[in-house]
Amino acid sequence: MTERFEIVEKAIKTMLDDKKYSTARDLLETMNPADIGALIVRLEEKKIPLLFRLLPKELAAETFVEMENEDQELLIRGFSDNELKEVLDELFVDDAVTLVEEMPANVVKRILKQADPEMRKTINQILRYPENSAGSLMTTEYVSLRPDMTVGESILRIRRQGVDKETIYTCYVTQGRKLIGLVTVKELLLAESDDILVQDIMLTNIISVTTHTDQEEVARMLAKYDFLALPVMDKENRMVGIVTFDDAIDVLEEETTEDMEIMGGMLPSEKTYLRSSVWELFKNRIPWLMLLMVTATFTGMIITAFEGALAAEVALTAFIPMLMGTGGNSGSQSSVTVIRSLSLDELEFKDLFRVVWKEVRVSFFCAIALAVANFVKMILIDMLLITGNNISFNREGLLVALVVCLALAVTVICAKIIGAVLPILAKKLGFDPAVMANPFITTIVDALSLLVYFFFAKMIILS
Amino acid sequence: MTERFEIVEKAIKTMLDDKKYSTARDLLETMNPADIGALIVRLEEKKIPLLFRLLPKELAAETFVEMENEDQELLIRGFSDNELKEVLDELFVDDAVTLVEEMPANVVKRILKQADPEMRKTINQILRYPENSAGSLMTTEYVSLRPDMTVGESILRIRRQGVDKETIYTCYVTQGRKLIGLVTVKELLLAESDDILVQDIMLTNIISVTTHTDQEEVARMLAKYDFLALPVMDKENRMVGIVTFDDAIDVLEEETTEDMEIMGGMLPSEKTYLRSSVWELFKNRIPWLMLLMVTATFTGMIITAFEGALAAEVALTAFIPMLMGTGGNSGSQSSVTVIRSLSLDELEFKDLFRVVWKEVRVSFFCAIALAVANFVKMILIDMLLITGNNISFNREGLLVALVVCLALAVTVICAKIIGAVLPILAKKLGFDPAVMANPFITTIVDALSLLVYFFFAKMIILS
Repeated sequence: MTERFEIVEKAIKTMLDDKKYSTARDLLETMNPADIGALIVRLEEKKIPLLFRLLPKELAAETFVEMENEDQELLIRGFSDNELKEVLDELFVDDAVTLVEEMPANVVKRILKQADPEMRKTINQILRYPENSAGSLMTTEYVSLRPDMTVGESILRIRRQGVDKETIYTCYVTQGRKLIGLVTVKELLLAESDDILVQDIMLTNIISVTTHTDQEEVARMLAKYDFLALPVMDKENRMVGIVTFDDAIDVLEEETTEDMEIMGGMLPSEKTYLRSSVWELFKNRIPWLMLLMVTATFTGMIITAFEGALAAEVALTAFIPMLMGTGGNSGSQSSVTVIRSLSLDELEFKDLFRVVWKEVRVSFFCAIALAVANFVKMILIDMLLITGNNISFNREGLLVALVVCLALAVTVICAKIIGAVLPILAKKLGFDPAVMANPFITTIVDALSLLVYFFFAKMIILS
Repeated sequence: MTERFEIVEKAIKTMLDDKKYSTARDLLETMNPADIGALIVRLEEKKIPLLFRLLPKELAAETFVEMENEDQELLIRGFSDNELKEVLDELFVDDAVTLVEEMPANVVKRILKQADPEMRKTINQILRYPENSAGSLMTTEYVSLRPDMTVGESILRIRRQGVDKETIYTCYVTQGRKLIGLVTVKELLLAESDDILVQDIMLTNIISVTTHTDQEEVARMLAKYDFLALPVMDKENRMVGIVTFDDAIDVLEEETTEDMEIMGGMLPSEKTYLRSSVWELFKNRIPWLMLLMVTATFTGMIITAFEGALAAEVALTAFIPMLMGTGGNSGSQSSVTVIRSLSLDELEFKDLFRVVWKEVRVSFFCAIALAVANFVKMILIDMLLITGNNISFNREGLLVALVVCLALAVTVICAKIIGAVLPILAKKLGFDPAVMANPFITTIVDALSLLVYFFFAKMIILS
């Protein structure tokens, strides 16, 4: 696939350079809009309008939807009013709304001026819903049927109206503006006779969302039920639109990327990595780095406070990184698992005690395994093999090993429990659980592991 | 939604306890298979077969597909041969294949024995494809048309054959077994006349995959092109099946979970968190913990090697956690960003130098900001405010601050570049880039930050 795409890309670039426009047009016509969009991203800026104008009207609109915001803006700024109108007329309402949401104010003004009155009204309506809600994601174009229509009449209606509708495969049976059932084109086509009434074959067990449902929840529902679309209701329970599965897939990808960015200690960004400017990347990364740097100084203060202990038994210092590292890794393992389960709705607040009990047992076994392995390693390698080391195979050396292994075990157990519990609590309190991922957990566990370490050191060696 | 689900769950449990089976059955019939599956997960084991037998035949099969593997196995073991056959007859081929792939050998034997010969043959064929390939994900049930059929004939054919096909909305136009075009039901329904030939309206710009294409790539293609299904070709370029969008969504979710698990330093698991046993969680977590514990000892060895430096200037020890922590966080920020971009195909190997150049600039600004902030903090807080501290506002104290800030800046820059480059190299070498996430990067950066720190300390203070 990718290789073929690269060949096509090169070919089209050459054709544009050589001004072989009609050949380029022929080649473009065989391509999928998503691929043309990917091609445009890699084009020089001044060639983008040139290539776009080669596309036939419908393909141009479909490609426009697939393009990055910057390229869309560039094109619109170069469009004549007529060209803009032509593209807008071909767009589905939900795509037009997305466009309006992403463009700067002066471009939006031009778009709304050129959109036909019907579309302008709908765009304005949809824009009133909160960002990232089902209302702002939905399209108002769907096929609606009446319950007393026959299968034959329904198919006829789809054939007459369908061309403007984003999806025709699920039809919504409404009475007034109340949704009373749904029927798929498959069921209509496979009905035994054309005279059967829609109300006799429609599904009445309707799953719907409201205009204010969060887009991630809508997307998860579409994924869970394998529907092509979900109906959207307003506050008065009247049907106002549908959210389609292709938008749901995009939402899931976006939300996952956002989760990962937050888990990596960054502010979420809307742009792809290569498209983000250095300044934008800097702005997204520096806040957490600063915050975590400041909190990490507490860890330093703990070390300062126990400097006496470290000076009395120099061997202790060398094991600090291992202890903090293993603690941090243990904690981030459970926090990543729990955060993902929360976002897939596999876990709820009421499962808190099940989670704690599970982590207690898992961490206990991990702690034993790690402590034993570390004890053996310290005796075999640190004491017997590398004799020039700070600890020797005598009573003092064995006590150091004991302290390290005890601290390791306790740290691992605490880290895993903290790592699992914090995301669940965060969600309960209305925060994004992803914030409780690695960077945050590590900072807590770093301080904790040192306190545990020095506690055992004082108790066992320095008393 | 969730509240409503909990009410229904409670109601059904009560009905089962009170043996009000027909009421329970009526309620279950109004529910969606995915919800019944979620209900079954929360049921006592002995009640599962009871509830399942209440479901009407078709709903039972649809629910069966939505259930967890353990529950499926439990049911099959309790089924009579006849009951098993009834469920199997209702399954789509791709669901049957998934079932067979997940069940233990003796259950598979029973399944294959009860499946009708046609399905058994298909299952066996699909099982021959590698796991996680398009071949093993596909279904062989699709609507195929001939190019010389009219629109009217095509619709008739769909109406006759469609009931067994998982998706009827995209029809595949074949000649022999070669795929020459595709046409959607929408296009057929909206065609101007019933007499138009399929070959005149079909799309010939076909995007397809082969049986050996990785399932993640297939899913990404479906998401990218917003298709309902993708045709699958064998080595001789004959069409053998389709992969549908609902399976693609599941694959994307699974692969994301797997990525996150690997990025969290765990072996990927197939089960949900609550379903995994303590032993399974332990097995997935302990390998990386062990490995990283061992590598962390190198960091300890660096500290031991520079013990002289630490003893000469005690204040240095307190800044080690801050230095390692900030370095680790900087590195994991870029590695998470790059790993995600790689898995979304936004980034390729040939972008390596663009990435490095971007990270050089971003990390430079981050390094300056962090170093300046830290320098100011060390002077204002560590030296002037907390006077009982190890460093004072004199030449020696300022030199320590200089060493810490220089080491910090250099560490942040190195960490970000390493964090961005390693995943790209890993992918190029055929490894999963996700392995290069936080735990791995942190271990490298920990050692690196210490080396940098002691280098500056030796050069500036101890010379």
